[in-house]
Amino acid sequence: MNTPQPSLIVVGTVAFDAIETPFGKSDKIVGGAATYAALSASYFTPHPGIISVVGDDFPRDFLNVLSAHGVLLDGLEIRSGEKSFFWSGRYRADMNSRDTLETQLNVLAGFQPRVPEPWRRTPFLLLGNLMPSIQMAVLDQMDVRPGLVVMDTMNFWMETALTDLKNVLARVDVLTINDEEARQLSGEYALVAAARKILAMGPRYLVIKKGENGALLFHGDQVFFAPALPLEEVFDPTGAGDTFAGGFIGFLAATGDVSFENMKRAVLYGSAMASFCVEKFGTARLIHLSRNEIDDRLRQFIHLTHFDIQLED
Amino acid sequence: MNTPQPSLIVVGTVAFDAIETPFGKSDKIVGGAATYAALSASYFTPHPGIISVVGDDFPRDFLNVLSAHGVLLDGLEIRSGEKSFFWSGRYRADMNSRDTLETQLNVLAGFQPRVPEPWRRTPFLLLGNLMPSIQMAVLDQMDVRPGLVVMDTMNFWMETALTDLKNVLARVDVLTINDEEARQLSGEYALVAAARKILAMGPRYLVIKKGENGALLFHGDQVFFAPALPLEEVFDPTGAGDTFAGGFIGFLAATGDVSFENMKRAVLYGSAMASFCVEKFGTARLIHLSRNEIDDRLRQFIHLTHFDIQLED
Repeated sequence: MNTPQPSLIVVGTVAFDAIETPFGKSDKIVGGAATYAALSASYFTPHPGIISVVGDDFPRDFLNVLSAHGVLLDGLEIRSGEKSFFWSGRYRADMNSRDTLETQLNVLAGFQPRVPEPWRRTPFLLLGNLMPSIQMAVLDQMDVRPGLVVMDTMNFWMETALTDLKNVLARVDVLTINDEEARQLSGEYALVAAARKILAMGPRYLVIKKGENGALLFHGDQVFFAPALPLEEVFDPTGAGDTFAGGFIGFLAATGDVSFENMKRAVLYGSAMASFCVEKFGTARLIHLSRNEIDDRLRQFIHLTHFDIQLED
Repeated sequence: MNTPQPSLIVVGTVAFDAIETPFGKSDKIVGGAATYAALSASYFTPHPGIISVVGDDFPRDFLNVLSAHGVLLDGLEIRSGEKSFFWSGRYRADMNSRDTLETQLNVLAGFQPRVPEPWRRTPFLLLGNLMPSIQMAVLDQMDVRPGLVVMDTMNFWMETALTDLKNVLARVDVLTINDEEARQLSGEYALVAAARKILAMGPRYLVIKKGENGALLFHGDQVFFAPALPLEEVFDPTGAGDTFAGGFIGFLAATGDVSFENMKRAVLYGSAMASFCVEKFGTARLIHLSRNEIDDRLRQFIHLTHFDIQLED
């Protein structure tokens, strides 16, 4: 039997989280950017491959869950005698900001990513939120530059590794960050001005995520706005951005179309996936979804935003 | 010559403001909820009539500006020897919050609104942000209950006159408030839950304004989301909410159609008017607009939100 080839590669953490929200407190549960992104992508494209590292404390059962979703784990290094990356945090009452309570780098401290040889011509690459030098090391190992490289990052790397971050940014096609990070990276308050500066740093596309206030897609002078679905309740925002990025690139990999029109659809599918993610702690809501449930959220987007105005030219 | 009849009535302050933003400081300039709302409405419907009060310090020139826009002033009481309402405030760096520096009630202290006799069958009524008992007094003077009553209000009245506010709310068709006010009025954090509670208080429609994050229109179980246009810069947010409300009801009065579909269009026209308002201090940007400039903003909304997804049923 031939080992399947990945349809896209996801680089990022596979880890443990402990989360407190105004609605409750989780145990130590599975999290990590690559976990959320690969699960999300798996609903669109058959075989997302993960590049990451865990310790031997990571539950075998959860690796089986990933495999059952078609996720390929040949790029996941398991270090015996070491512990997986751990993060704990507490969300504030408005759920839009959070405080880190504890970070244990563990296996991540000395992580040197290795792209399996048969994966080095994969056409879609998601550089999930991780130290920029690790993102770069993955990009450097590709034999053929992927047709589409999407990068996620966060303010922490802007403060501690800005030069590396900008070097990666110069080599990617799409950057996804949140509004505060866009302001920090550009030094501009207005998002239109921030987007112009960031697009000048390299990427052809920029997605600015605004949480419950939706997302903006910038490309040249074009802008597309996708609202977030108004939800009854947001239970746990952890992983929503990674889930968005996974759904976004998963949809693009599935359709093989990286036009602006199709990127709009990808933003909506990414937002739909994020809307599931926040409904339960951790990855719980991402484990059992049907394509029908996902399409139902798309129908909700259509109803939410549809209007009909006739204007003379 | 017959005196024209108003196509809609706008109740609210006509006043002076002094504004500080991160971008500059205004002199004492003309402001007030009814001023913004009537100017905004005048681009859609020929004769908005104002019910308000000023002192004899209010500039005759500005009354002429209002008249030139078709605004009827028979319901504007001018009290000699008294001073107009005055508010001064300072916006914080993010432009989303502001601190009141000074409030002088002046003529507003003893204001008893009087609806001119020929105006008492006007079919559209905007109860702009003002003490709820004054809003109620206007509603009580109508000989025929208007076909559509829109109410605006603010957190200040929730804190100081909640019972009066709820009595007015029970008698209106549409409430427009911002997200924080919706949370305060309902005691619910999630806007979907907040909307359900507020709709149970009386109004059939609810518009929740989120500033640079757009607006939501709720009606029964239906929701429509309109983004704000991503602007290069926001210069002065003062009056944006009143400008929205004036454009919203002005469009409805002009089309005479109060269906949900047409309310969506009204939300977009209101948002377009608000996007002009914030570009300059005070009412400056609202004085000289063309219908063409307004329709151009509508075209921007269409481009911003348009996507094409085919889903099977």
